[in-house]
Amino acid sequence: MTETTTHTISAEQSRREQELTDRVLASFENTPDDRLKQLMQALTKHLHAFVREVRLTEAEWEKAIEFLTNVGHITDERRQEFILLSDVLGASMQTILVNNPADGDATEATVFGPFFLEDAPEIPLGGDIAGGAPGQPCWVEGTVTDTTGRPIPNARVEVWEADEDGFYDVQYGDDRVAGRAHLYSDEKGRYAFWGLTPTPYPIPHDGPVGAMLAATNRSPVRAAHLHFMVTAPALRTLVTHIFVEGDPQLEIGDSVFGVQDSLIKTFAPQPAGTPTPDGRDLGDQEWARTRFDIVLAPATA
Amino acid sequence: MTETTTHTISAEQSRREQELTDRVLASFENTPDDRLKQLMQALTKHLHAFVREVRLTEAEWEKAIEFLTNVGHITDERRQEFILLSDVLGASMQTILVNNPADGDATEATVFGPFFLEDAPEIPLGGDIAGGAPGQPCWVEGTVTDTTGRPIPNARVEVWEADEDGFYDVQYGDDRVAGRAHLYSDEKGRYAFWGLTPTPYPIPHDGPVGAMLAATNRSPVRAAHLHFMVTAPALRTLVTHIFVEGDPQLEIGDSVFGVQDSLIKTFAPQPAGTPTPDGRDLGDQEWARTRFDIVLAPATA
Repeated sequence: MTETTTHTISAEQSRREQELTDRVLASFENTPDDRLKQLMQALTKHLHAFVREVRLTEAEWEKAIEFLTNVGHITDERRQEFILLSDVLGASMQTILVNNPADGDATEATVFGPFFLEDAPEIPLGGDIAGGAPGQPCWVEGTVTDTTGRPIPNARVEVWEADEDGFYDVQYGDDRVAGRAHLYSDEKGRYAFWGLTPTPYPIPHDGPVGAMLAATNRSPVRAAHLHFMVTAPALRTLVTHIFVEGDPQLEIGDSVFGVQDSLIKTFAPQPAGTPTPDGRDLGDQEWARTRFDIVLAPATA
Repeated sequence: MTETTTHTISAEQSRREQELTDRVLASFENTPDDRLKQLMQALTKHLHAFVREVRLTEAEWEKAIEFLTNVGHITDERRQEFILLSDVLGASMQTILVNNPADGDATEATVFGPFFLEDAPEIPLGGDIAGGAPGQPCWVEGTVTDTTGRPIPNARVEVWEADEDGFYDVQYGDDRVAGRAHLYSDEKGRYAFWGLTPTPYPIPHDGPVGAMLAATNRSPVRAAHLHFMVTAPALRTLVTHIFVEGDPQLEIGDSVFGVQDSLIKTFAPQPAGTPTPDGRDLGDQEWARTRFDIVLAPATA
C-alpha cells in the first residue's frame, strides 16, 4: 500500500503539470448543470492526480486504452464487463456505502449485482423459490421491522440466488425462471421461504477483468450469498445479501467486496429426516436453516 | 472549481468507507509485479476518493456505466473513442508532460493524436508534403539542434496535418496518402518543406465524448496545428505540434489541451506573386511561411 517508486519532480515541472490540470478544470467552468460541473471537475482532479502520482508511462497509458477497449468490446446485452470492473475495484460497493449511511441498527446494504430480474414470481409465506434449480433446500425465516423495532407488515421481500453449480437462471440460456421469487411479510412482519443453501461461484472471468484479477493474484470467486431486496412504504429500500458463516471464501476475500460482518449468518445443517418447520417431506435429503431479521431505515435518512 | 455541495459525514460513516478502501487496497497486496501493484493501488485510492468526495449517487453510477459502455461500442479499428476521452479530459496531455520534463530550452512536447501513419513517403529538403491535399501552400523551415546548440544533421523529421477542410488522409475513405511525409535535416541541421497552412477542425464529436463536450458547453475544435515527430540518435524523440499565432481557437481553448505558448508560431501571409524561397511558381495563389527551430533533449534526460 506504500508507493514503490520515488520520483524527484522539479518545482518547475510540478508547476507545468498543475497548470495543465487547472486548464482542464477551467474548461468545465461553463457547464450549465452545477452537479455535472462538480463531477467533471472532481474526475479531472483525481484522474490527473493519479497520472502525476504514478508517473504513468506512455506505454502504460496505451495499455490502459487497450484494456478499456477490450472491456467495451466484450460488453453486450448479456454481459456487462464495466460493472464487473467497477465491482472488482470496489467502486460499486463504495457507491453503496456512500448512499446507505448507517442508521441505528438498520441492516447494512451491499452490492446489487447484475442478476436481478423484475417480475420474479410471487410465492406465499413458506413457499419455495427454487423453481427446479438444483441445490440443498434451505429454510430462511426472519422479521422485517423499522429502526424503532416496529414490525412491518406487507413488506415486499425479493430474493434471488445462484444454484448449487453457481449459475443464475439467466445464465441457463433458456427462459426458465428459477432461484428467484418475491413474497410479503405477514401482519407481524414475519417472512419465511424455502431457498437453496448458497455456494461460492466465480464472477465471469474469461474477459479482461478476469485477466486483471489473474495478473494481480486475486480470486474471482464471490463468497456464497443469497440476495435480498426489501421495500416498504416510507422506509429506505434495502438491497443486500446474507453470507454463509464458515464459507472459506470469506477468508480468501469476496471478489466484489460485498461482505459486511453483520451480514454473515449461520446456516445450520439439518441431517436427513430432521422434521421441517412446515412439515415438508424432504425424504432422505439434508437441508439447512437460517434466520435473517431485517431492519429498514427511514426513507428520509 | 470549488465544490458546490457540502455533506456532513459522520466519523463512523467515514471509518466504514475508509475500511472498504483499505480492503480493496489490501486485495492487490499479492500482485507479483511491483509496478502493477502500485498502479492498481493508486487507481483504487483515487477512484474511491472521487466516489467519496462527490458522494456519487447510484443513478450517477449507472449513468457512468452507460457512458463507458457507449464509448466502448463506438470504438472500432477506425475510431478510438477512449483516446478521445483521455484527450478531452487532459489525461493524454498530462501523460505527455510527465514523460517529457523540461530540459534546458528543449522544444516542448504535445499530444500524439490518432492520425500518425508509419511509412509516410520520404521527400527531399524543400519538397511538398501535400500530395494533392487541398489548402494554402506554406513554407516551413528551421533547424534541428541539441540543447548545447549543436546542429543535428540527418535528423528524421516526420510531419503530418489535416487539409483545409479539417480532414486527414486516413479520413478520406480511400487509400490516398496526403498531407504527410518525412525528410532529413542537412549537414547544418537545417530542414525545409512545403506544407499547408493549418486550419482548426473538430475532433469526431458525434459520439458519447461529443455529447459530454456539448453537455459541458465545451468546443470540440482543435486549435490549428501541424504535427512533428523528430528523431535522432542519442536524443529524446520529440512529438509535438506548431500552432498558428492569431488562431481564434487559441483563445477559445484547444479541445485536447495540446497548446504550449512556446509552440505558437507566426505564419506570415505572403500575397500572391511574392517570390518563393525555392523559386516555386505558385501563380496567383497566396501562400504563408513559418519558422520552427527544434531543440532535442538528451535521450537519458
